[in-house]
Amino acid sequence: MERPFTFINSAMSADGKISTNERKQVRISGNVDFERMDELRATSDAVMVGIGTVLADDPSLTVKSEARRAKRKLNEHEENPVRIVVDSQARTPLDADIFKKGVGTRVIAVSKSAPRDRVQAFGKVAVVIEAGEDKVDLSELVVQLKKMGIDRLMVEGGARLNFGMLSSGLVDEIYSFVGNLIIGGAVSPTLVDGIGFQENEILELEFMSFEKMDDGVVLKWRVKATQTFD
Amino acid sequence: MERPFTFINSAMSADGKISTNERKQVRISGNVDFERMDELRATSDAVMVGIGTVLADDPSLTVKSEARRAKRKLNEHEENPVRIVVDSQARTPLDADIFKKGVGTRVIAVSKSAPRDRVQAFGKVAVVIEAGEDKVDLSELVVQLKKMGIDRLMVEGGARLNFGMLSSGLVDEIYSFVGNLIIGGAVSPTLVDGIGFQENEILELEFMSFEKMDDGVVLKWRVKATQTFD
Repeated sequence: MERPFTFINSAMSADGKISTNERKQVRISGNVDFERMDELRATSDAVMVGIGTVLADDPSLTVKSEARRAKRKLNEHEENPVRIVVDSQARTPLDADIFKKGVGTRVIAVSKSAPRDRVQAFGKVAVVIEAGEDKVDLSELVVQLKKMGIDRLMVEGGARLNFGMLSSGLVDEIYSFVGNLIIGGAVSPTLVDGIGFQENEILELEFMSFEKMDDGVVLKWRVKATQTFD
Repeated sequence: MERPFTFINSAMSADGKISTNERKQVRISGNVDFERMDELRATSDAVMVGIGTVLADDPSLTVKSEARRAKRKLNEHEENPVRIVVDSQARTPLDADIFKKGVGTRVIAVSKSAPRDRVQAFGKVAVVIEAGEDKVDLSELVVQLKKMGIDRLMVEGGARLNFGMLSSGLVDEIYSFVGNLIIGGAVSPTLVDGIGFQENEILELEFMSFEKMDDGVVLKWRVKATQTFD
């Protein structure tokens, strides 16, 4: 059993926040970083977010550059990477931008306890993957994604999904744009939230690279211990 | 009225955390960064922390290097910078390491509503500064510190004091070592907590420099809008 090569890409403030204490999005990165993100999407087989991000930000997750979409088609790919929502209880609104905007395959990953009528409704607009009893089993999900031909998976948050993927050992690299601002706030979402790691199980990274970009910096890290399913 | 040049120095994980969700300290930085921090202490007139940090970590805040202490004495300074605790309700234990370890002046900043007996007890071991009704008025405090001859103030956290100082416009620069680890956790303390800034009042920084250090990086930022008291 194999899983896709997986990376997290995120923009955070200099104090590690991805939005305000009211989950309001703030412009963290600049135009160059935006292009970097669009290129990452265009060169990935799939882009994944958690339901919290869908409900808070309603992202379309499409490739924004026409040239990049054209290049994908030239290479016999869909215009946009497969767009995946991890949505244990099937709460993604049917009029979410992820359904309305752009062409291409959508995947909604639900748990077995998700309301049946909601899951059936998804069936018309997306590929539905069931994995896990009450919460989506991420390890099972990524194996399914690999079977669908997804070799390169981009995770775009939010904080809880990032923790779920990292704590399940399913992430190979983390790219974070660190912007020139402080958001602050004890309850503001950060790059990685969830329960968190305890002192004896802290997740170790390896520094890959640094790049000055816009008014901030991009840090790239490799995750040291990952699950390889062998 | 003037205030000291003030900087925050902190080590955080790649996701912005300064300790685990149980406030357990984790080794974030390496030996080179430790020396960098010790040098910053040795070249500052005062080092400041919040009461939360004293209660959680019990730091001594002394200069660790004998050579650096000797150099300070040679320059007719006390061996250690003035050590300051911002402690609105006078909760610093009298047997805290900040009192027990090292020589030099201690300052406890309390509010006017702090229990009188506690404040009196501090009087024997520290300079007590009263500022603010229920919470220490940080703007008033730093003016007092400047009058004491403190021109260069190092703030070593925690997250709440960092927010208090930043939101009061009293910080000039932020130095953060970003370590090669993920701590995660929605309630883990981060570089800057407190209430946080709202979307229309986000604190802007200016990128100063980047340096690879140990297995992480040091990012330096200048705070754009600060209070100058003129």
